[in-house]
Amino acid sequence: MLEGVKVLAFDADDTLWSNEPLFREAEKKVAEALSDFGDFQYISDELYKVEFKNMGDYGFGAKAYVLSMIENAVNLTGGKLTGEQVMYIIDSGRRILRNPATPFPGVEETLEKLSKDGRYELVLMTKGELLDQERKIARSGLSKYFSHIDIVSNKTQKEYLDLCDRLRITPKELLMVGNSFKSDIEPVIQLGGWGIFIPSETLWKLEHTEEYDHRNLFKVNTFEDILNILI
Amino acid sequence: MLEGVKVLAFDADDTLWSNEPLFREAEKKVAEALSDFGDFQYISDELYKVEFKNMGDYGFGAKAYVLSMIENAVNLTGGKLTGEQVMYIIDSGRRILRNPATPFPGVEETLEKLSKDGRYELVLMTKGELLDQERKIARSGLSKYFSHIDIVSNKTQKEYLDLCDRLRITPKELLMVGNSFKSDIEPVIQLGGWGIFIPSETLWKLEHTEEYDHRNLFKVNTFEDILNILI
Repeated sequence: MLEGVKVLAFDADDTLWSNEPLFREAEKKVAEALSDFGDFQYISDELYKVEFKNMGDYGFGAKAYVLSMIENAVNLTGGKLTGEQVMYIIDSGRRILRNPATPFPGVEETLEKLSKDGRYELVLMTKGELLDQERKIARSGLSKYFSHIDIVSNKTQKEYLDLCDRLRITPKELLMVGNSFKSDIEPVIQLGGWGIFIPSETLWKLEHTEEYDHRNLFKVNTFEDILNILI
Repeated sequence: MLEGVKVLAFDADDTLWSNEPLFREAEKKVAEALSDFGDFQYISDELYKVEFKNMGDYGFGAKAYVLSMIENAVNLTGGKLTGEQVMYIIDSGRRILRNPATPFPGVEETLEKLSKDGRYELVLMTKGELLDQERKIARSGLSKYFSHIDIVSNKTQKEYLDLCDRLRITPKELLMVGNSFKSDIEPVIQLGGWGIFIPSETLWKLEHTEEYDHRNLFKVNTFEDILNILI
């Protein structure tokens, strides 16, 4: 039990269920379909440039990703891409949007135990597109464990302060559980709150950041491990 | 002054600023670029079918629209679309995302008057993509007038009840101002709340619905007209 912590906030994608690997799988398949125009690394690097350029207009998420993949394919093929290739990219994106959001092993049991234990309020705080995130939450079957669900377009100190306001708590009473040091952990510990960091195998390039130790920060390997810290 | 009304909720797109005409303009330009494959009406009808089919995966908004326009172009050209056409469609979509969200004439002055008058709390309730809506609200310069901003993926009775919960009011204390009878007016008056309907010239096909009179409903021509009802 952590002194003073009242609310546990959970990240969703790649913390409660797998998501980023679907993007990587789509990228790999599309690069294979375009292999006449470069190897995987080249196509991937070019895609990242297009994504970065489009960030201001599109933000992130599967639809932004598909639009950037199409634009990248136009560039790579010198405008000679086929309708078939376009539809292949579009269909690859559809598979990301249809993510079944099946909870990782141990997630549901752990949330159930925390919920029954009752000493913390559980909330969900996820970054992404509204409809896409709402659907994944619904498909996961996990929404019943959360008293509050917040879908935000960014996760900086501002959004965590807003969350605290809505929950009528101070940042010291908040503990965030997530797989992205940059989005889930750093803003919260900088505000004086707590973090449990569960690194994921796959992390989007734009989420890469330097990691460091902190007295309010715990690092664990699996979701179930959070019980050792919390109960 | 309306008895019992405590909160005025405002729709954003096509109520505070123009939005739908940007979609129609993009559609028109793309149809011109594809005019070898059919006239405007045919291309538009086919696009609507593709949009409707994709609604489950994409929802609505500019990125969804661009993806459906690209898919429609693949279909219409029998897979023989050029990279140039693809980029033309993508750039048409970018113009929608870059909507300056300049308030309609009279909007800012009216919000200012209502704000100074102080008898109602003003909130914003808009449907769409999170980041896209946040940016338009920021560009509009109007966010200072609203005590609360809600961006939702749908506007049904459920979302209005959630809004009332958050604002700690009953639906009878809510008045919604908007241009869509289906999304802005009907759910609120069905819940016992109030509506001011300001029809817009352009309305998305999926927002079409039967309109009717109701004792809690007012219909006006311009945004400034709402003052005659409210003050």
